[in-house]
Amino acid sequence: MNTIDISLDEFSEQARKSIPLLEAMELRFTRFGDYRLRVDVPLEPNINDKRTGFGGSISALATTAGWAVVSLLLRPRMGEYDVMVAESHIRYLAPATCNFYAIAAVTESAIKTFYGLLEKQHQGRLTVQVVVEQDGKQIAVYTGTYKVAQKPSL
Amino acid sequence: MNTIDISLDEFSEQARKSIPLLEAMELRFTRFGDYRLRVDVPLEPNINDKRTGFGGSISALATTAGWAVVSLLLRPRMGEYDVMVAESHIRYLAPATCNFYAIAAVTESAIKTFYGLLEKQHQGRLTVQVVVEQDGKQIAVYTGTYKVAQKPSL
Repeated sequence: MNTIDISLDEFSEQARKSIPLLEAMELRFTRFGDYRLRVDVPLEPNINDKRTGFGGSISALATTAGWAVVSLLLRPRMGEYDVMVAESHIRYLAPATCNFYAIAAVTESAIKTFYGLLEKQHQGRLTVQVVVEQDGKQIAVYTGTYKVAQKPSL
Repeated sequence: MNTIDISLDEFSEQARKSIPLLEAMELRFTRFGDYRLRVDVPLEPNINDKRTGFGGSISALATTAGWAVVSLLLRPRMGEYDVMVAESHIRYLAPATCNFYAIAAVTESAIKTFYGLLEKQHQGRLTVQVVVEQDGKQIAVYTGTYKVAQKPSL
């Protein structure tokens, strides 16, 4: 298990307040531990013209899940860093027909290597795997690379 | 020039009515011709915690631009088809600091080959290039592959 300095509810609230699209998506960070984060959205605000999950919502959900798992893993250990998506690939496997969620995961060895890199270089890139599912069935698979850098001093 | 059977304003309105995320993004289809479509969003509803364009919005904008250019190119010539994103790749080049827009383009030869394929097989896949820009400067480049299939009969 890894722990965080704020609750997931507080993290959801902060994220939704500063990123209006997450509020529109009604996105919630729902479970964090073992280097994995689950992020849920209801179907209705994320629906498309075919009454299934909108591709743009699925992609935004996966992008957010990857960003958030990196942010949450870094916060308690390394202090506050800026985490920015640099590149991503997504493959859509099946239409979403009900509420759906993303699970973003980083391996323990990858994050430990990354902590070491950040301690030396204060910046780096980390790749995250995300699956998007409904009822345990995959609807999309995503790989995102995130750039991590020290916050600019104010 | 290619023509469409509805105005871009009507297409924007229909899309925003059936896809609530596009309404939240305040997305507008603004220019269509020569196998290219421009799609605009204001920064404010698409901002992130760093006060720049949210990666999820940029990705949703590019996904939508690709979907829409294929839909608009098919409509007058082939009738109504379902267009669904199958796979995409995006690379983020610079933060968006003001209103931004996507330009989705298909080459004339690719779409003409695709019309022929659809006439024979009634389904297929088409790849679209999208650049996302602000003030003429690229902020992201996207490649998306879209699956096109006949609408299921009701």
